Amino acid sequence: MRFMLILAYDGTAYQGWQIQDKGLTIQAEVEKAMFRICCKHVRIHGAGRTDAGVHALGQVAHFDSPQGFEHIPWQRALNSVLPHNIRIVDCREAARDFHARFCALTKEYFYTLWISSAFFYPQRRNFVWNTGHLEIQPMKEAAGRLLGTHDFTSFMNKGTQIKDTTRTILDISFQTGSFPQELVLSIRASGFLKQMARNIVGVLVQAGRNRLSPSDISSILQSRDRTLAPATAPARGLCLARVEY
Amino acid sequence: MRFMLILAYDGTAYQGWQIQDKGLTIQAEVEKAMFRICCKHVRIHGAGRTDAGVHALGQVAHFDSPQGFEHIPWQRALNSVLPHNIRIVDCREAARDFHARFCALTKEYFYTLWISSAFFYPQRRNFVWNTGHLEIQPMKEAAGRLLGTHDFTSFMNKGTQIKDTTRTILDISFQTGSFPQELVLSIRASGFLKQMARNIVGVLVQAGRNRLSPSDISSILQSRDRTLAPATAPARGLCLARVEY
Repeated sequence: MRFMLILAYDGTAYQGWQIQDKGLTIQAEVEKAMFRICCKHVRIHGAGRTDAGVHALGQVAHFDSPQGFEHIPWQRALNSVLPHNIRIVDCREAARDFHARFCALTKEYFYTLWISSAFFYPQRRNFVWNTGHLEIQPMKEAAGRLLGTHDFTSFMNKGTQIKDTTRTILDISFQTGSFPQELVLSIRASGFLKQMARNIVGVLVQAGRNRLSPSDISSILQSRDRTLAPATAPARGLCLARVEY
Repeated sequence: MRFMLILAYDGTAYQGWQIQDKGLTIQAEVEKAMFRICCKHVRIHGAGRTDAGVHALGQVAHFDSPQGFEHIPWQRALNSVLPHNIRIVDCREAARDFHARFCALTKEYFYTLWISSAFFYPQRRNFVWNTGHLEIQPMKEAAGRLLGTHDFTSFMNKGTQIKDTTRTILDISFQTGSFPQELVLSIRASGFLKQMARNIVGVLVQAGRNRLSPSDISSILQSRDRTLAPATAPARGLCLARVEY
Protein backbone atom coordinates (compact mmCIF):
# COMPACT_ATOMS: atom_id res chain seq x y z
CA MET A 1 0.00 0.00 0.00
CA ARG A 2 1.38 3.40 -0.99
CA PHE A 3 1.36 6.36 1.39
CA MET A 4 1.98 10.05 0.90
CA LEU A 5 3.76 11.94 3.70
CA ILE A 6 3.83 15.67 4.27
CA LEU A 7 6.91 16.66 6.26
CA ALA A 8 8.08 19.79 8.03
CA TYR A 9 11.66 20.18 9.17
CA ASP A 10 14.14 22.61 10.61
CA GLY A 11 16.99 21.98 8.19
CA THR A 12 19.65 23.78 10.28
CA ALA A 13 21.31 20.59 11.55
CA TYR A 14 21.05 18.62 8.28
CA GLN A 15 23.09 18.15 5.14
CA GLY A 16 19.87 18.43 3.18
CA TRP A 17 17.11 16.01 2.23
CA GLN A 18 19.01 13.36 0.33
CA ILE A 19 20.96 10.48 1.88
CA GLN A 20 24.70 11.02 1.66
CA ASP A 21 27.81 9.15 2.70
CA LYS A 22 28.54 11.67 5.42
CA GLY A 23 26.39 13.78 7.69
CA LEU A 24 22.77 13.71 8.81
CA THR A 25 20.05 13.99 6.19
CA ILE A 26 16.29 14.16 6.52
CA GLN A 27 15.65 11.23 4.18
CA ALA A 28 18.03 9.06 6.23
CA GLU A 29 16.31 10.04 9.49
CA VAL A 30 12.88 9.11 8.12
CA GLU A 31 14.19 5.80 6.78
CA LYS A 32 15.81 5.08 10.17
CA ALA A 33 12.48 5.85 11.84
CA MET A 34 10.71 3.46 9.46
CA PHE A 35 13.22 0.76 10.33
CA ARG A 36 12.60 1.27 14.03
CA ILE A 37 8.86 0.86 13.46
CA CYS A 38 8.82 -2.20 11.20
CA CYS A 39 12.39 -3.59 11.19
CA LYS A 40 12.44 -3.36 7.41
CA HIS A 41 14.32 -1.07 5.04
CA VAL A 42 11.68 1.14 3.45
CA ARG A 43 12.73 3.63 0.79
CA ILE A 44 11.29 7.14 1.15
CA HIS A 45 10.98 9.07 -2.14
CA GLY A 46 10.94 12.85 -1.74
CA ALA A 47 9.35 15.38 -4.11
CA GLY A 48 12.74 17.04 -4.40
CA ARG A 49 16.06 17.52 -2.67
CA THR A 50 16.44 20.44 -0.35
CA ASP A 51 19.97 21.78 0.26
CA ALA A 52 21.85 21.70 3.55
CA GLY A 53 20.27 24.23 5.93
CA VAL A 54 17.07 24.63 3.89
CA HIS A 55 13.78 24.11 5.75
CA ALA A 56 10.38 22.72 4.82
CA LEU A 57 6.81 23.16 5.98
CA GLY A 58 5.36 21.00 3.20
CA GLN A 59 7.91 18.60 1.73
CA VAL A 60 6.11 15.60 0.20
CA ALA A 61 7.35 12.02 0.05
CA HIS A 62 5.89 8.61 -0.68
CA PHE A 63 6.66 5.07 0.42
CA ASP A 64 5.22 1.59 0.15
CA SER A 65 4.36 0.01 3.47
CA PRO A 66 5.85 -3.44 3.93
CA GLN A 67 3.38 -6.34 4.00
CA GLY A 68 1.63 -6.62 7.34
CA PHE A 69 2.21 -2.93 8.16
CA GLU A 70 -0.68 -1.44 6.17
CA HIS A 71 -2.67 -0.33 9.20
CA ILE A 72 0.03 1.43 11.19
CA PRO A 73 -0.96 5.00 12.18
CA TRP A 74 2.12 6.26 10.35
CA GLN A 75 1.97 9.93 11.37
CA ARG A 76 1.88 9.11 15.07
CA ALA A 77 4.32 6.21 14.80
CA LEU A 78 6.93 8.19 12.86
CA ASN A 79 6.60 11.29 15.06
CA SER A 80 7.21 9.16 18.15
CA VAL A 81 10.65 8.05 16.87
CA LEU A 82 11.80 10.94 14.64
CA PRO A 83 14.12 13.65 16.01
CA HIS A 84 12.31 16.78 17.16
CA ASN A 85 13.50 18.86 14.21
CA ILE A 86 11.54 16.66 11.76
CA ARG A 87 7.76 16.24 12.04
CA ILE A 88 5.20 14.41 9.94
CA VAL A 89 2.46 16.95 9.29
CA ASP A 90 0.14 14.53 7.51
CA CYS A 91 0.03 11.00 6.11
CA ARG A 92 -2.58 9.68 3.68
CA GLU A 93 -3.05 6.61 1.55
CA ALA A 94 -2.06 7.41 -2.05
CA ALA A 95 -2.85 5.91 -5.42
CA ARG A 96 -0.71 2.91 -6.40
CA ASP A 97 0.99 4.98 -9.14
CA PHE A 98 1.47 8.19 -7.13
CA HIS A 99 5.07 9.39 -7.20
CA ALA A 100 6.10 12.32 -4.99
CA ARG A 101 8.66 13.56 -7.54
CA PHE A 102 7.28 12.64 -10.95
CA CYS A 103 3.66 13.60 -10.25
CA ALA A 104 4.52 17.05 -8.85
CA LEU A 105 2.95 19.83 -10.96
CA THR A 106 4.26 22.90 -9.15
CA LYS A 107 6.39 23.73 -6.13
CA GLU A 108 6.36 26.77 -3.93
CA TYR A 109 9.29 27.99 -1.88
CA PHE A 110 9.43 31.03 0.34
CA TYR A 111 12.51 32.97 1.31
CA THR A 112 12.64 35.27 4.33
CA LEU A 113 14.80 38.40 4.35
CA TRP A 114 15.47 40.59 7.39
CA ILE A 115 15.56 44.08 5.89
CA SER A 116 16.17 46.31 8.91
CA SER A 117 19.67 47.71 9.31
CA ALA A 118 18.92 48.99 12.82
CA PHE A 119 18.75 45.70 14.71
CA PHE A 120 18.24 41.96 14.42
CA TYR A 121 16.31 39.42 16.51
CA PRO A 122 18.57 36.39 17.09
CA GLN A 123 15.56 34.05 17.41
CA ARG A 124 15.33 34.34 13.60
CA ARG A 125 18.99 33.66 12.80
CA ASN A 126 18.48 30.16 11.34
CA PHE A 127 15.48 31.18 9.24
CA VAL A 128 16.28 34.50 7.59
CA TRP A 129 18.99 36.23 5.61
CA ASN A 130 19.83 39.53 7.29
CA THR A 131 20.50 41.79 4.30
CA GLY A 132 19.84 45.15 5.93
CA HIS A 133 17.79 47.75 4.06
CA LEU A 134 16.40 46.86 0.62
CA GLU A 135 14.19 48.83 -1.73
CA ILE A 136 11.15 46.79 -2.57
CA GLN A 137 9.97 48.47 -5.78
CA PRO A 138 13.06 47.54 -7.84
CA MET A 139 12.81 43.99 -6.44
CA LYS A 140 9.23 43.75 -7.70
CA GLU A 141 10.25 45.01 -11.12
CA ALA A 142 13.13 42.53 -11.25
CA ALA A 143 10.76 39.72 -10.22
CA GLY A 144 8.47 40.68 -13.10
CA ARG A 145 11.31 40.00 -15.57
CA LEU A 146 11.62 36.42 -14.28
CA LEU A 147 7.96 35.44 -14.56
CA GLY A 148 7.00 33.05 -17.31
CA THR A 149 8.85 30.34 -19.21
CA HIS A 150 12.60 30.80 -19.64
CA ASP A 151 15.85 28.90 -19.89
CA PHE A 152 17.15 29.33 -16.32
CA THR A 153 20.74 28.20 -16.97
CA SER A 154 22.05 31.44 -15.42
CA PHE A 155 20.18 30.52 -12.23
CA MET A 156 21.42 26.92 -11.95
CA ASN A 157 24.47 25.91 -9.95
CA LYS A 158 26.74 23.15 -11.17
CA GLY A 159 26.54 19.60 -9.93
CA THR A 160 23.56 18.12 -11.74
CA GLN A 161 23.30 16.62 -15.18
CA ILE A 162 20.08 17.93 -16.59
CA LYS A 163 19.05 18.30 -20.23
CA ASP A 164 16.10 20.62 -20.06
CA THR A 165 16.88 23.84 -18.21
CA THR A 166 13.55 25.47 -19.10
CA ARG A 167 11.19 26.19 -16.21
CA THR A 168 8.08 28.30 -15.76
CA ILE A 169 7.81 30.74 -12.88
CA LEU A 170 4.12 31.16 -12.16
CA ASP A 171 4.29 33.72 -9.38
CA ILE A 172 6.67 35.72 -7.18
CA SER A 173 4.90 37.48 -4.33
CA PHE A 174 6.08 39.84 -1.58
CA GLN A 175 4.69 39.81 1.95
CA THR A 176 5.60 40.86 5.47
CA GLY A 177 6.84 38.03 7.70
CA SER A 178 6.35 37.25 11.38
CA PHE A 179 8.08 40.54 12.26
CA PRO A 180 7.54 43.82 10.37
CA GLN A 181 11.29 43.79 9.58
CA GLU A 182 10.84 40.61 7.54
CA LEU A 183 10.15 40.47 3.82
CA VAL A 184 8.95 37.09 2.57
CA LEU A 185 9.37 36.24 -1.11
CA SER A 186 7.20 33.35 -2.31
CA ILE A 187 8.21 31.75 -5.59
CA ARG A 188 5.90 29.28 -7.31
CA ALA A 189 7.18 27.43 -10.36
CA SER A 190 6.73 24.32 -12.49
CA GLY A 191 10.01 23.14 -10.99
CA PHE A 192 13.33 24.42 -9.74
CA LEU A 193 16.83 23.73 -11.05
CA LYS A 194 19.68 23.20 -8.59
CA GLN A 195 19.71 26.20 -6.20
CA MET A 196 17.48 28.14 -8.59
CA ALA A 197 15.29 29.54 -5.80
CA ARG A 198 18.34 30.82 -3.90
CA ASN A 199 19.84 32.24 -7.11
CA ILE A 200 16.61 34.10 -7.86
CA VAL A 201 16.74 35.59 -4.37
CA GLY A 202 20.39 36.54 -4.88
CA VAL A 203 19.37 38.50 -7.98
CA LEU A 204 16.35 40.15 -6.35
CA VAL A 205 18.43 41.27 -3.36
CA GLN A 206 20.97 42.92 -5.68
CA ALA A 207 18.03 44.68 -7.37
CA GLY A 208 16.84 45.83 -3.92
CA ARG A 209 20.31 47.30 -3.34
CA ASN A 210 20.06 49.10 -6.68
CA ARG A 211 23.07 47.19 -7.96
CA LEU A 212 21.13 45.56 -10.80
CA SER A 213 18.49 47.19 -12.97
CA PRO A 214 15.49 45.31 -14.37
CA SER A 215 17.20 45.26 -17.78
CA ASP A 216 20.30 43.67 -16.17
CA ILE A 217 18.00 40.87 -15.00
CA SER A 218 16.84 40.26 -18.56
CA SER A 219 20.46 40.22 -19.78
CA ILE A 220 21.47 37.71 -17.10
CA LEU A 221 18.55 35.48 -18.08
CA GLN A 222 19.40 35.70 -21.79
CA SER A 223 23.14 35.13 -21.27
CA ARG A 224 22.58 31.56 -19.97
CA ASP A 225 25.78 32.10 -18.04
CA ARG A 226 25.77 31.42 -14.30
CA THR A 227 28.97 33.46 -13.79
CA LEU A 228 27.16 36.67 -14.76
CA ALA A 229 24.55 36.35 -11.98
CA PRO A 230 25.06 37.38 -8.34
CA ALA A 231 26.01 34.92 -5.57
CA THR A 232 23.55 32.31 -4.33
CA ALA A 233 21.52 33.48 -1.31
CA PRO A 234 22.24 31.62 1.97
CA ALA A 235 20.33 28.37 2.52
CA ARG A 236 18.88 29.29 5.93
CA GLY A 237 16.33 31.78 4.52
CA LEU A 238 14.73 29.19 2.24
CA CYS A 239 11.76 26.97 3.03
CA LEU A 240 9.87 24.52 0.81
CA ALA A 241 6.29 25.61 1.41
CA ARG A 242 4.25 23.14 -0.65
CA VAL A 243 4.15 20.77 -3.60
CA GLU A 244 1.04 20.62 -5.75
CA TYR A 245 -0.17 17.53 -7.62
CA MET B 1 28.72 57.64 31.65
CA ARG B 2 25.66 55.41 32.04
CA PHE B 3 24.21 53.50 29.10
CA MET B 4 20.94 51.66 28.62
CA LEU B 5 21.00 48.50 26.49
CA ILE B 6 18.04 46.77 24.87
CA LEU B 7 18.80 43.10 24.29
CA ALA B 8 17.18 40.29 22.33
CA TYR B 9 18.19 36.69 22.88
CA ASP B 10 17.32 33.14 22.02
CA GLY B 11 17.44 31.67 25.53
CA THR B 12 17.46 28.02 24.41
CA ALA B 13 21.16 27.46 25.09
CA TYR B 14 21.33 29.49 28.32
CA GLN B 15 20.80 28.91 32.03
CA GLY B 16 18.91 32.19 32.13
CA TRP B 17 19.92 35.82 32.44
CA GLN B 18 21.80 35.84 35.73
CA ILE B 19 25.43 34.82 36.20
CA GLN B 20 25.76 31.45 37.90
CA ASP B 21 28.58 29.18 39.02
CA LYS B 22 27.79 26.70 36.26
CA GLY B 23 26.49 27.01 32.74
CA LEU B 24 26.20 29.79 30.22
CA THR B 25 24.15 32.86 31.09
CA ILE B 26 23.26 35.93 29.05
CA GLN B 27 24.59 38.37 31.64
CA ALA B 28 27.94 36.54 31.69
CA GLU B 29 28.17 36.61 27.89
CA VAL B 30 27.54 40.36 27.80
CA GLU B 31 30.11 40.98 30.54
CA LYS B 32 32.63 38.79 28.65
CA ALA B 33 31.94 40.83 25.52
CA MET B 34 32.51 44.07 27.48
CA PHE B 35 35.81 42.69 28.74
CA ARG B 36 36.88 41.85 25.19
CA ILE B 37 36.13 45.42 24.12
CA CYS B 38 37.73 47.37 26.94
CA CYS B 39 39.76 44.84 29.00
CA LYS B 40 37.85 45.93 32.11
CA HIS B 41 35.25 44.15 34.21
CA VAL B 42 32.02 46.03 33.66
CA ARG B 43 28.94 44.96 35.59
CA ILE B 44 25.72 44.70 33.53
CA HIS B 45 22.52 45.25 35.52
CA GLY B 46 19.43 43.66 33.97
CA ALA B 47 15.82 44.76 34.45
CA GLY B 48 15.04 41.28 35.70
CA ARG B 49 16.19 37.69 35.58
CA THR B 50 14.80 35.46 32.90
CA ASP B 51 14.74 31.69 33.56
CA ALA B 52 16.74 29.07 31.67
CA GLY B 53 15.25 28.67 28.19
CA VAL B 54 13.24 31.92 28.33
CA HIS B 55 13.76 34.36 25.45
CA ALA B 56 13.75 38.16 25.14
CA LEU B 57 13.06 40.70 22.43
CA GLY B 58 13.31 43.67 24.79
CA GLN B 59 15.33 42.89 27.90
CA VAL B 60 16.81 46.10 29.33
CA ALA B 61 20.12 46.53 31.12
CA HIS B 62 22.39 49.35 32.16
CA PHE B 63 26.11 49.76 32.70
CA ASP B 64 28.65 52.46 33.38
CA SER B 65 31.29 52.80 30.71
CA PRO B 66 34.84 52.73 32.08
CA GLN B 67 36.79 55.98 31.83
CA GLY B 68 38.10 56.56 28.35
CA PHE B 69 35.44 54.34 26.76
CA GLU B 70 32.58 56.86 26.65
CA HIS B 71 32.54 57.18 22.87
CA ILE B 72 32.56 53.53 21.87
CA PRO B 73 29.69 52.67 19.46
CA TRP B 74 28.49 50.07 21.98
CA GLN B 75 25.76 48.42 19.90
CA ARG B 76 28.11 47.66 17.02
CA ALA B 77 31.06 46.80 19.27
CA LEU B 78 29.08 44.37 21.44
CA ASN B 79 27.33 42.73 18.47
CA SER B 80 30.68 42.08 16.85
CA VAL B 81 31.87 39.97 19.80
CA LEU B 82 28.65 38.53 21.28
CA PRO B 83 27.48 35.01 20.33
CA HIS B 84 24.89 34.98 17.56
CA ASN B 85 22.04 34.04 19.91
CA ILE B 86 22.37 37.38 21.77
CA ARG B 87 21.97 40.72 19.96
CA ILE B 88 22.01 44.32 21.14
CA VAL B 89 18.88 45.87 19.66
CA ASP B 90 19.62 49.39 20.86
CA CYS B 91 22.01 51.34 23.08
CA ARG B 92 21.45 54.87 24.37
CA GLU B 93 23.01 57.14 26.91
CA ALA B 94 20.94 57.10 30.12
CA ALA B 95 20.52 59.44 33.05
CA ARG B 96 23.16 59.08 35.79
CA ASP B 97 20.55 57.65 38.18
CA PHE B 98 18.81 55.37 35.69
CA HIS B 99 18.59 51.80 37.00
CA ALA B 100 17.29 49.06 34.70
CA ARG B 101 15.68 47.15 37.59
CA PHE B 102 14.62 49.78 40.11
CA CYS B 103 13.26 52.28 37.59
CA ALA B 104 11.11 49.73 35.73
CA LEU B 105 7.42 50.65 35.91
CA THR B 106 5.88 47.73 34.01
CA LYS B 107 7.02 44.62 32.19
CA GLU B 108 5.39 42.75 29.38
CA TYR B 109 5.93 39.10 28.59
CA PHE B 110 4.34 37.08 25.84
CA TYR B 111 3.83 33.34 25.81
CA THR B 112 3.24 31.38 22.61
CA LEU B 113 1.05 28.26 22.59
CA TRP B 114 0.68 25.86 19.65
CA ILE B 115 -2.97 24.86 19.84
CA SER B 116 -3.41 22.52 16.89
CA SER B 117 -3.60 18.81 17.70
CA ALA B 118 -3.32 17.84 14.02
CA PHE B 119 0.33 18.70 13.41
CA PHE B 120 3.32 20.73 14.58
CA TYR B 121 5.99 22.73 12.77
CA PRO B 122 9.41 21.79 14.26
CA GLN B 123 10.85 25.22 13.38
CA ARG B 124 8.83 26.49 16.36
CA ARG B 125 9.91 23.87 18.91
CA ASN B 126 12.16 26.16 20.99
CA PHE B 127 9.64 29.01 21.07
CA VAL B 128 6.21 27.52 21.76
CA TRP B 129 4.45 25.12 24.10
CA ASN B 130 2.56 22.55 22.02
CA THR B 131 -0.56 22.01 24.12
CA GLY B 132 -2.89 20.74 21.42
CA HIS B 133 -6.45 22.05 21.23
CA LEU B 134 -7.54 24.70 23.77
CA GLU B 135 -10.82 26.55 24.12
CA ILE B 136 -10.15 30.25 24.11
CA GLN B 137 -13.32 31.60 25.72
CA PRO B 138 -12.71 29.94 29.13
CA MET B 139 -9.09 31.14 28.96
CA LYS B 140 -10.27 34.72 28.47
CA GLU B 141 -12.68 34.40 31.42
CA ALA B 142 -9.91 32.96 33.58
CA ALA B 143 -7.59 35.79 32.55
CA GLY B 144 -10.25 38.29 33.61
CA ARG B 145 -10.10 36.88 37.17
CA LEU B 146 -6.37 37.63 37.37
CA LEU B 147 -6.49 41.27 36.25
CA GLY B 148 -5.89 43.92 38.87
CA THR B 149 -3.98 43.96 42.15
CA HIS B 150 -3.70 40.68 44.04
CA ASP B 151 -1.42 38.72 46.32
CA PHE B 152 0.10 36.32 43.77
CA THR B 153 1.65 33.87 46.28
CA SER B 154 -0.14 30.96 44.55
CA PHE B 155 1.64 31.93 41.35
CA MET B 156 5.15 32.23 42.80
CA ASN B 157 7.64 29.36 42.80
CA LYS B 158 10.02 28.87 45.72
CA GLY B 159 13.57 30.08 45.73
CA THR B 160 13.34 33.80 46.36
CA GLN B 161 13.04 35.71 49.59
CA ILE B 162 10.53 38.39 48.93
CA LYS B 163 8.31 40.27 51.37
CA ASP B 164 5.70 41.85 49.18
CA THR B 165 3.95 39.32 46.95
CA THR B 166 1.38 41.82 45.69
CA ARG B 167 1.49 42.66 42.00
CA THR B 168 -0.86 44.37 39.56
CA ILE B 169 -1.73 42.73 36.26
CA LEU B 170 -2.62 45.52 33.86
CA ASP B 171 -3.54 43.49 30.82
CA ILE B 172 -3.72 39.95 29.42
CA SER B 173 -4.37 39.89 25.68
CA PHE B 174 -4.89 37.07 23.18
CA GLN B 175 -3.62 37.17 19.60
CA THR B 176 -2.72 34.86 16.74
CA GLY B 177 1.01 34.21 16.32
CA SER B 178 3.24 33.80 13.27
CA PHE B 179 1.20 30.73 12.28
CA PRO B 180 -2.59 30.49 12.57
CA GLN B 181 -2.06 27.51 14.92
CA GLU B 182 -0.35 29.79 17.45
CA LEU B 183 -2.05 31.61 20.28
CA VAL B 184 0.01 34.38 21.85
CA LEU B 185 -0.82 35.52 25.40
CA SER B 186 0.62 38.91 26.32
CA ILE B 187 0.78 39.70 30.03
CA ARG B 188 1.58 43.21 31.21
CA ALA B 189 2.11 43.80 34.91
CA SER B 190 3.72 46.09 37.47
CA GLY B 191 6.18 43.26 38.06
CA PHE B 192 6.42 39.49 38.11
CA LEU B 193 7.24 37.16 40.99
CA LYS B 194 9.48 34.15 40.38
CA GLN B 195 7.99 32.18 37.44
CA MET B 196 4.71 34.10 37.83
CA ALA B 197 4.24 34.53 34.06
CA ARG B 198 4.71 30.80 33.45
CA ASN B 199 2.39 29.95 36.36
CA ILE B 200 -0.31 32.24 34.96
CA VAL B 201 0.00 30.44 31.62
CA GLY B 202 -0.20 27.07 33.40
CA VAL B 203 -3.52 28.14 34.93
CA LEU B 204 -4.91 29.59 31.68
CA VAL B 205 -4.05 26.40 29.76
CA GLN B 206 -5.93 24.29 32.33
CA ALA B 207 -8.88 26.66 31.87
CA GLY B 208 -8.60 26.15 28.09
CA ARG B 209 -8.80 22.39 28.68
CA ASN B 210 -11.91 22.95 30.81
CA ARG B 211 -10.14 21.50 33.83
CA LEU B 212 -10.46 24.71 35.84
CA SER B 213 -13.47 27.03 35.96
CA PRO B 214 -13.18 30.80 36.37
CA SER B 215 -14.25 30.42 40.02
CA ASP B 216 -11.45 27.86 40.55
CA ILE B 217 -9.04 30.59 39.42
CA SER B 218 -10.37 32.95 42.06
CA SER B 219 -10.06 30.22 44.71
CA ILE B 220 -6.45 29.50 43.73
CA LEU B 221 -5.64 33.21 43.94
CA GLN B 222 -7.31 33.56 47.36
CA SER B 223 -5.71 30.40 48.77
CA ARG B 224 -2.19 31.88 48.56
CA ASP B 225 -1.03 28.29 48.22
CA ARG B 226 1.24 27.40 45.30
CA THR B 227 0.44 23.68 45.65
CA LEU B 228 -3.19 24.27 44.66
CA ALA B 229 -2.27 25.79 41.26
CA PRO B 230 -1.38 23.79 38.11
CA ALA B 231 2.18 23.08 37.00
CA THR B 232 4.43 25.86 35.68
CA ALA B 233 4.31 26.19 31.87
CA PRO B 234 7.56 25.30 30.05
CA ALA B 235 10.17 28.06 29.75
CA ARG B 236 10.56 27.86 25.96
CA GLY B 237 7.19 29.51 25.20
CA LEU B 238 8.02 32.64 27.22
CA CYS B 239 9.59 35.84 25.93
CA LEU B 240 10.29 39.14 27.69
CA ALA B 241 8.76 41.61 25.23
CA ARG B 242 9.48 44.99 26.83
CA VAL B 243 10.18 46.95 29.99
CA GLU B 244 8.62 50.35 30.43
CA TYR B 245 10.15 53.21 32.40
